[in-house]
Amino acid sequence: MTSNPSPRLPKRVVIREVGLRDGLQSIARIVPTAAKLEWIQDAYDAGQREIEIGSFVPAHLLPQLADTAEVLAFSQSLPGLTASVLVPNLKGAERAMACGAEFMLLPLSASHAHSLANLRKTPDEVVQEIKRIVAARETQGSSTKIEVGISTAFGCTLQGRVEPSEVVRLVKAVLDAGVDAVGLADTVGYADPAMVRSLFESVLPVAGEKLNCGHFHDTRGLGLANVYAALELGISRFDACLGGIGGCPHAPGASGNVATEDLAFMLASMGIESGQDMDALLALRKKVAIWLEGETLHGTLWRAGLPRTMKREQQRMQPA
Amino acid sequence: MTSNPSPRLPKRVVIREVGLRDGLQSIARIVPTAAKLEWIQDAYDAGQREIEIGSFVPAHLLPQLADTAEVLAFSQSLPGLTASVLVPNLKGAERAMACGAEFMLLPLSASHAHSLANLRKTPDEVVQEIKRIVAARETQGSSTKIEVGISTAFGCTLQGRVEPSEVVRLVKAVLDAGVDAVGLADTVGYADPAMVRSLFESVLPVAGEKLNCGHFHDTRGLGLANVYAALELGISRFDACLGGIGGCPHAPGASGNVATEDLAFMLASMGIESGQDMDALLALRKKVAIWLEGETLHGTLWRAGLPRTMKREQQRMQPA
Repeated sequence: MTSNPSPRLPKRVVIREVGLRDGLQSIARIVPTAAKLEWIQDAYDAGQREIEIGSFVPAHLLPQLADTAEVLAFSQSLPGLTASVLVPNLKGAERAMACGAEFMLLPLSASHAHSLANLRKTPDEVVQEIKRIVAARETQGSSTKIEVGISTAFGCTLQGRVEPSEVVRLVKAVLDAGVDAVGLADTVGYADPAMVRSLFESVLPVAGEKLNCGHFHDTRGLGLANVYAALELGISRFDACLGGIGGCPHAPGASGNVATEDLAFMLASMGIESGQDMDALLALRKKVAIWLEGETLHGTLWRAGLPRTMKREQQRMQPA
Repeated sequence: MTSNPSPRLPKRVVIREVGLRDGLQSIARIVPTAAKLEWIQDAYDAGQREIEIGSFVPAHLLPQLADTAEVLAFSQSLPGLTASVLVPNLKGAERAMACGAEFMLLPLSASHAHSLANLRKTPDEVVQEIKRIVAARETQGSSTKIEVGISTAFGCTLQGRVEPSEVVRLVKAVLDAGVDAVGLADTVGYADPAMVRSLFESVLPVAGEKLNCGHFHDTRGLGLANVYAALELGISRFDACLGGIGGCPHAPGASGNVATEDLAFMLASMGIESGQDMDALLALRKKVAIWLEGETLHGTLWRAGLPRTMKREQQRMQPA
């Protein structure tokens, strides 16, 4: 039996709600704009301060997210809320900048096969597009921040193995290109805590504090264990979807992202501030279940409820 | 952002299947003895070498486990299988010893309220009973090993908070009494990875290698994260239930123990040997779903299947 020094966990963690983008894009039905605005308002009232609200992709490709500009405008009316939008290319980035988005998220697949399937570009062609986006931002004097999410960083259903060295190379390339932040995404639920530790440890020397997001799908039940492994390395920002929606077209019925409410519970239980009001999150989850009636929601806390031992002040810990 | 030294994880881990005891006792229906024997045979063929097969409690209290002696006799016919039985008191222990059980597991609630509700004895009265069991074993020259599972070690639905100092005190008391091994159980799913780390760190100086089991319910989705936190401290033996059965009467519909198949997957993915054949486990899970038709099974891997990146040799890694 071995013992290891206690990890120094972060005191505060940001949960970015990505249900309105990653979640809704994987569900065929179109949630009405009014429901999305209600979702965002309720999430805001529950303490959420970062929400990925949609994606600037052509409406015929993702009609579920066709109202992104309208949803973004509403989000910008809520003081202190950081709304981010996903953009797949320069054209999307120009729309995001024109709308004054605070953050745009660019996906970059570390898997060659996934990159071609998803964006019809090789990873290096996506890096070139990211350079064009950075240049366009400069030309326009836009203040929109650019975050790159390295997707399929832990493996890919199409290609299989993804080399960690390729992830490191791509992170270096986009940081050299001038992006503000990078995150690592387990798009298909292939990661385990040892892989998380190893890959984040490989990327941290290259990215430092610019590596500030973990995006874990719970496809095989390891989502929260993976979050914990990243917390031990000081990572303090995670994507999550209320009700664990999201998922992967290659694993029908599989659960999606880490459930926001379960992650919020884990953090609160560990004494890590995330500013989430869990009663409000669980109430919102009920609304989402109605908006998505017939779809499978995931997560665990909603069934069991909060432990008796959790004090009220733990349930709503505001970040300073 | 902080960094921490890499933990040294164990190379091999034992998964003890407790579905036939912890799982079935929480389900009203009585699974026929023939199905139990088939379950044990299939689990054995899938590589499982530790199974808690039942409980020597009065049949009128737990008719689901009334066939424990017969199930134990069958288990003893399988070479290399360590079958354990739960015993609540001296009377049960005498039956276990008379049957030549290799291992008997004695639950000792760290929660005063749970101890009274479960065994109608205070924790200290249970310690006295354990002393009588150790004495009886000596008198009889029995070789049955005694493991004490400290239940509600992380909190209790009846009492609420359980003091870690009380857990340490009880572990010390039963080790002084002469038991062979102790484990810590999160009976109601109140633990988080930080609590797991802290409590195991408190108990290890007292128990050393005699602390060799973690029993985590997945009631609030943190089961595997909790296992990972214990792995980092070198704990290398965990209880689990195929299909995540088990559960808690105080949290209707909540999931039960960590699912055997999900735990086996996490370990295999991390390169930790557990000797489990995952295809065989998933096939057995299908049988269990038929035997328990109408009951809710849990776990995640069965929906998504194994990742493409998992090599065949990872899927069945035999402990040396």
